[in-house]
Amino acid sequence: MRLVTFVDPSGAERVGALDGDAAVDLGAAYAVHLERAGTEPERARQVAGALFGSMVALIEAGETGKQQAELAIEAARAAEGLAHPLDAIRLLAPLRPVALRDCIAFEGHLRHYMEEIRGLQIPAEWYERPVYYKGNAHTVVGPEDDVPWPAYSSQRDYELELGVVVGPGGVDLDPEQAEGHIYGLTIFDDFSARDEQAREMPVGLGPAKSKDFATGLGPWILTIDEVDDVYTLDMRASVNGELWSEGTTGSIHWRFGEIMSRMSQSEPLRAGEVFGSGTVENGCGLEFGRFLEHGDVVELEITGLGVLRNRIVAR
Amino acid sequence: MRLVTFVDPSGAERVGALDGDAAVDLGAAYAVHLERAGTEPERARQVAGALFGSMVALIEAGETGKQQAELAIEAARAAEGLAHPLDAIRLLAPLRPVALRDCIAFEGHLRHYMEEIRGLQIPAEWYERPVYYKGNAHTVVGPEDDVPWPAYSSQRDYELELGVVVGPGGVDLDPEQAEGHIYGLTIFDDFSARDEQAREMPVGLGPAKSKDFATGLGPWILTIDEVDDVYTLDMRASVNGELWSEGTTGSIHWRFGEIMSRMSQSEPLRAGEVFGSGTVENGCGLEFGRFLEHGDVVELEITGLGVLRNRIVAR
Repeated sequence: MRLVTFVDPSGAERVGALDGDAAVDLGAAYAVHLERAGTEPERARQVAGALFGSMVALIEAGETGKQQAELAIEAARAAEGLAHPLDAIRLLAPLRPVALRDCIAFEGHLRHYMEEIRGLQIPAEWYERPVYYKGNAHTVVGPEDDVPWPAYSSQRDYELELGVVVGPGGVDLDPEQAEGHIYGLTIFDDFSARDEQAREMPVGLGPAKSKDFATGLGPWILTIDEVDDVYTLDMRASVNGELWSEGTTGSIHWRFGEIMSRMSQSEPLRAGEVFGSGTVENGCGLEFGRFLEHGDVVELEITGLGVLRNRIVAR
Repeated sequence: MRLVTFVDPSGAERVGALDGDAAVDLGAAYAVHLERAGTEPERARQVAGALFGSMVALIEAGETGKQQAELAIEAARAAEGLAHPLDAIRLLAPLRPVALRDCIAFEGHLRHYMEEIRGLQIPAEWYERPVYYKGNAHTVVGPEDDVPWPAYSSQRDYELELGVVVGPGGVDLDPEQAEGHIYGLTIFDDFSARDEQAREMPVGLGPAKSKDFATGLGPWILTIDEVDDVYTLDMRASVNGELWSEGTTGSIHWRFGEIMSRMSQSEPLRAGEVFGSGTVENGCGLEFGRFLEHGDVVELEITGLGVLRNRIVAR
């Protein structure tokens, strides 16, 4: 399934699944499904609201939620008005993550960024464990959203990353168990104020004001059951229609199971959290010395995950 | 007011205010206040639930919430059963923060940690802006809670910090405006796995597995109206009854208004978020080469904020 959060023609925020060129309103469709099976209408609405009231609610329902979503899609195909044409709705970021982390799992990016640009060696510690920083889960932007760039920065950059949406959690998982906790995939744009990053990183606490103003997610979550191989996805970034970055998830050094296993040690993974893979090699302007201007449109594309398009604007 | 979250004798989680040796159940007491003013009982319960259903709800209500809490305390004094003796309840962390950040605002701590121990200079950038990392808001522990220490660490440390609870938010605030957004204060223990920290910090993304397993908050939030001067509070840490650390908030280099102003640039402050001041000088074992063992009891004490007591245990 391709799961979305959208604003319907009445202005209400709904959780949906794409079906051809339309978005099924999962809550509305599931209520119809239940009513047909004999549930009283008000109770049907309440149950549907509990399951499909938000994307995180749906994710928390795990496999049950996915199964009931399939039933809702079937119900929508057999009735009128339960699916909206895409041009009648507005997609939002597919979820409001309960937490946001961002890794640095591609060696090629690190080689360019650390060795070629900063003249440093990749730290030995990077090869010993997957590392990440924690992002700001409250400033997520969705498809077609403008990204208001902080006034304190003029080195504006994108980062082309795969986003992993975590399903019902677990703790102290081994890598194989952990990889089984992937709920789905989306595109992740780690917008980066490079000048601010250069100013704040020397203290050693990681990025904050250089990243926390916005993270792009979307346009949909592709559930993991529909992904043949997470390590063969093509990744592409264009700016104003010009191709700037090209890569593949296959060049990742740390596997998602290894990353999630480490994350889960002594603290639970949580349903509805999202983490970025880290930038693919050549997946940001910093690596080749080009930055964004106000008005530039950044498009990230990953196989099966659509296109995440955002415009940079002055704040 | 000294605001708490507690488990009442029936096992329910409640928001309260300390009144002498008892905790007023603010929701129950406010419902009684409303009923006395003529509100129907069921409606009174709903309104009280909306205001006092969680500490974050109360904080989101801003000054209105504080005023209504005072009315609830008065109602509890005039009736039976609306306040619980402290020995009949269990205090939890005073809130589940909507986000957690931790600063490094005391120069003395940095001097010991960076210059004396690691042989480095304090980066010039530290004097130019207050910096912080983002913590894990989902692993907060409260007063008297055990802290299960990760199996991957044997250098167990505490950090003695002042915790700042943020009230209804704002964005792009100047330092004076920003300091006005302090809702209250609590004690903040940034438990630190020093061996893991040494392994993960060289990559430059800041701390994660060395910190994210637990942060101590509590035992209560002292609302800022009851704090004469936030920069004259004594801070003390004891381990198994022996004094290990002593300091004062007066030695802080970055003022909270400066810190919060920076945090608010291009991203909103949020009601119910919490940040730590950073460790006061000599406020952790790392600075003088002593670490914690399983079974050790750490007590942090700050003027007006009580004692936050936690025991380190094997996970």
